[in-house]
Amino acid sequence: MSILAVGSIAFDTITTPSGHADSVLGGSATYFALAASYFTEVRIVAIVGDDFNAQHEKVLKDRHVDIRGIQHAPGKTFRWGGQYMDSLNEAKTDFTELNVFERFQPQIPPEYHDSLFLFLGNIHPSLQAAVRLEMERVRLTGGDTMNYWINNTPKELIETLRLMNILLINDAEAKMLAGERGLPRAARKVLAMGPQALVIKHGEYGATIFFREGAFGIGTHPFRAPALPIEEVKDPTGAGDSFAGGFMGYLASQGQLNREVLKRALFYGGVMGSFAVEAFGTERLQNLSRQEIDARFQLFRELTHLE
Amino acid sequence: MSILAVGSIAFDTITTPSGHADSVLGGSATYFALAASYFTEVRIVAIVGDDFNAQHEKVLKDRHVDIRGIQHAPGKTFRWGGQYMDSLNEAKTDFTELNVFERFQPQIPPEYHDSLFLFLGNIHPSLQAAVRLEMERVRLTGGDTMNYWINNTPKELIETLRLMNILLINDAEAKMLAGERGLPRAARKVLAMGPQALVIKHGEYGATIFFREGAFGIGTHPFRAPALPIEEVKDPTGAGDSFAGGFMGYLASQGQLNREVLKRALFYGGVMGSFAVEAFGTERLQNLSRQEIDARFQLFRELTHLE
Repeated sequence: MSILAVGSIAFDTITTPSGHADSVLGGSATYFALAASYFTEVRIVAIVGDDFNAQHEKVLKDRHVDIRGIQHAPGKTFRWGGQYMDSLNEAKTDFTELNVFERFQPQIPPEYHDSLFLFLGNIHPSLQAAVRLEMERVRLTGGDTMNYWINNTPKELIETLRLMNILLINDAEAKMLAGERGLPRAARKVLAMGPQALVIKHGEYGATIFFREGAFGIGTHPFRAPALPIEEVKDPTGAGDSFAGGFMGYLASQGQLNREVLKRALFYGGVMGSFAVEAFGTERLQNLSRQEIDARFQLFRELTHLE
Repeated sequence: MSILAVGSIAFDTITTPSGHADSVLGGSATYFALAASYFTEVRIVAIVGDDFNAQHEKVLKDRHVDIRGIQHAPGKTFRWGGQYMDSLNEAKTDFTELNVFERFQPQIPPEYHDSLFLFLGNIHPSLQAAVRLEMERVRLTGGDTMNYWINNTPKELIETLRLMNILLINDAEAKMLAGERGLPRAARKVLAMGPQALVIKHGEYGATIFFREGAFGIGTHPFRAPALPIEEVKDPTGAGDSFAGGFMGYLASQGQLNREVLKRALFYGGVMGSFAVEAFGTERLQNLSRQEIDARFQLFRELTHLE
């Protein structure tokens, strides 16, 4: 079943201990769409400037991503620069140029209105809410947010969380949103705000999904999918959105939503995140095969499962 | 099969967001012995001062720990004070009074010489080496170390690592010891120093075991045991030694050493670490049952395993 992703397209300038990349294609919608494209049909809504050319478009088209929802505006595309010299877990931002992204008002092409799955990338919570309300046929909504919205637009964020079925954030964001130190308590508080499930991403250590009581009719026990350490993290940028793409893409590819499907989705999220960080930008996500993906899924499984 | 643990006995003064504990029984040998005592017969060698009384002794005796190797010296027992107010992952040391521990020369009672398993707690690498060399019948040696020895006694540590079969350290220590950022590379470098296996402890995220090629005849694929977030970490002190106790204790309880046994040992390590942090000091480790332990083992397993 097709999934609509709304988020950013960006050009990223990235420095890590493994090297440097200048103005490479990135953004939450891009990473999400590429990762999800290995599982299901993906449509995106995002905004770009004059500097987004046919070559950039080709990256998405080659993965059969429906790009009719990309809005073109005069000016430059969103640009971000950051480095991971001290820690691969946290970027130090060098610059943020919002450019055309500053005036982003998501416009959903009519052809997209039959989407049954929706991913709300990390944009202003009010824009996320507007998209969700417009997409009347959507059955499952996943969403992301970040410390900036938690601190600056808490009221709008709380409203929007009620419209999400699954929120995907990292440890620090979950603790900040809940005002709690411990993950289980933080999870309960966040789930009380609206979502039926909360995926907390632990970077190189995998992710845990927590469920609200009664959610999806599958009980409240959490589930953790451990990722294995990979050989060299060249560029952590986009890992979280790639995780979301693998997770939501797999969910959208399945006819039903049960505990086992959600568990496997968490594994696929970890798998896509692990591919994303193996090269700069979106490079590694552009030419995978489902076979490679499933081989890594098996690797993750074998190396973490008892007999 | 019985296991001998050499390490410290201490009185800890601990402050965490959950409360405060004054001069409670602790130390690497104590946590290790209590955790391992649920799996096998445990003997300890450590040093204490005049302030170590019958009540403290009873904590170990009640768990059938053989304490004939506890040396009594005039003066005070090792005392440590620390707090975890900023982060539950790292203690801020308030004070360290080595006291009698400063002159600790492990003396192995003759009755201990038939021990087949050995755990070298975090003490001076030269003392660890001397114990290992004296224990001629030992079949498997596990050991710990810390940043202090990595920085200050690298030569002695390198010598000692050759005498260990399994080294158990945390992420930061592994990276520091190897001078590498990424875990797989760091693991390979450490394994090249001697141990056949390296257990890297990730705190609340579980642990990964890496194998040297040909080690134990079981291949080189790592294995990760994920721990689940527990409700409230009251006191992280001793979590690593309790992990080691569960891990080594389970190994010692098994007749053979194969991949599946090592994997289960890693899970039991996580289980004992998770119990340890649920109360201040050794409290939670004093009155467990094997049933409770196995129930949590199953919980860890179910909540991380795909069908």
